[in-house]
Amino acid sequence: MILLICAPGRDHSGLVQRIGQLAPDLDVRVWPEVGCPQAVDFAVVWKHPAGLLRELTGLKAVSSLGAGVEHLLNDPDLPPNLPVGRLVGPRLAADMAGYLVAQILGDWRRLDRFPHHQRRKQWRPWAPDRPPQVGLLGFGRMGKRAAQAFKALKVPVAAWRRGAGTEASIPLHHDRQGLETLAGWSDYLVCLLPLTDHTRGILDQELFRRMKPDSVLINVGRGEHLVEKDLLDALAKNRPSLAILDVFGEEPLPPQHPFWTHPAVRITPHCASLTQPEEAAELIVASVRRVQAGLPPLDPVQWEFGY
Amino acid sequence: MILLICAPGRDHSGLVQRIGQLAPDLDVRVWPEVGCPQAVDFAVVWKHPAGLLRELTGLKAVSSLGAGVEHLLNDPDLPPNLPVGRLVGPRLAADMAGYLVAQILGDWRRLDRFPHHQRRKQWRPWAPDRPPQVGLLGFGRMGKRAAQAFKALKVPVAAWRRGAGTEASIPLHHDRQGLETLAGWSDYLVCLLPLTDHTRGILDQELFRRMKPDSVLINVGRGEHLVEKDLLDALAKNRPSLAILDVFGEEPLPPQHPFWTHPAVRITPHCASLTQPEEAAELIVASVRRVQAGLPPLDPVQWEFGY
Repeated sequence: MILLICAPGRDHSGLVQRIGQLAPDLDVRVWPEVGCPQAVDFAVVWKHPAGLLRELTGLKAVSSLGAGVEHLLNDPDLPPNLPVGRLVGPRLAADMAGYLVAQILGDWRRLDRFPHHQRRKQWRPWAPDRPPQVGLLGFGRMGKRAAQAFKALKVPVAAWRRGAGTEASIPLHHDRQGLETLAGWSDYLVCLLPLTDHTRGILDQELFRRMKPDSVLINVGRGEHLVEKDLLDALAKNRPSLAILDVFGEEPLPPQHPFWTHPAVRITPHCASLTQPEEAAELIVASVRRVQAGLPPLDPVQWEFGY
Repeated sequence: MILLICAPGRDHSGLVQRIGQLAPDLDVRVWPEVGCPQAVDFAVVWKHPAGLLRELTGLKAVSSLGAGVEHLLNDPDLPPNLPVGRLVGPRLAADMAGYLVAQILGDWRRLDRFPHHQRRKQWRPWAPDRPPQVGLLGFGRMGKRAAQAFKALKVPVAAWRRGAGTEASIPLHHDRQGLETLAGWSDYLVCLLPLTDHTRGILDQELFRRMKPDSVLINVGRGEHLVEKDLLDALAKNRPSLAILDVFGEEPLPPQHPFWTHPAVRITPHCASLTQPEEAAELIVASVRRVQAGLPPLDPVQWEFGY
């Protein structure tokens, strides 16, 4: 079995070494050292170069190196019937949940004020008189993990997902009406959605209009979920009053972009949750074994939903 | 039933109003408006004035207004056989857990660096390659709640408690040997202990010597758990490299205290978890009802353990 790893601009030495330990039988190639492209059986890719998939004519399956698959599904060279998988391990989901809990509770409790008080030797105890209400857009692996953590902390949490769910652990909304209800309820509205034709631009003025004054928007989905101009207008109206953004339409965010200097925008540079080599190696090997056994790769795309 | 609330320096209007709504039959007095002291049946106190308990000769029980009871147990006027309770509600425990998760994950992920990078328009993604190891000293209501939240986030957590426990959800240590083992394992060592003769000064040079380089000490117990001079020496040796302190031997912390300006000390002014009037009112009424029924108050002191 020939496995190709292709994620331009990243260092894969640790990942490839670990795959070799876990599955010494695999012939692992790292782009651009592809060898004979037609011989590749399985490719794991992240923002792969245009045209690559056209050359890999012997592929049995392909996987995203991360949780998102839009770079694959939007590739016109993706063969129509090729099984597409992705890598969403427990560590990736837990790190995302940890980022959200730390950002939301740190902000809600205004922990950043205390270093300023300390500098002035001011003893000013303060804590909010209630926990925040957290609304999650998206309720997949990451959303469920975050919901579990918030529940353990007795922070009220609700979610919006594609269809009516059977998950009873937290209130679940769906449809347009449910989306607006959740937006109006949330102190923190968090976008964890996959990027599809249905979710592109979902964070727009129509949604911001439903948000509460002083609420906070957090986007850890994709930059394309957000209509940037609408957010700038909405921040001026205090609905939301703050945006914590980890993803952007163009990354790295260009120096002239207004988000950099906006007082109500907090930027983290797409690192809310990063695929770790150890976990990625285990998932890739597990996915390879499935494909070798004639099964779809791990976490296969559901074509009817577009992700 | 005459109930006395005594916590000098705090505003109790919200608390008393809520108790009145929940239990209109109670005669609620707020110190110093005690009326006839001998008539008081149940007192809920926090840092009450010396001599008060000597006057309340008709007391059937007394409760701390918070989780700690050392201000009661150290009062020479506390009658030997008087039942002593405390107030530790689910909100108080969850707020403490939220403080710990936000402080620990915010620090471990170095979230405070990103505002600096944003100011300089620097796109520098970073996340730690593993979660931190969190050691909890104390495994009561607050410790269990914190452990549950860390577990939901797949953060390794272990605890140290008085005796060998039967709780199987996380590794539990006990005895002196176990304390040192936990200190040597933890990236974050958190003191959540009650203050007793056995725990006073437990955060001392002997313990710090066992801690890992670059580890962090968090004290949300009591100031008296910490030997302040030993901490200053230990910080100079980088074991621990940082102390996050919410409680102090003298509060408010005096202006000349070296902690205020120490670069490796982060101060929050005893507000990691504050008793909320709504929850306190419910717990007080529940405790009163127990005493009226001839039962001990809520969460009674276990005299054999000193807390």
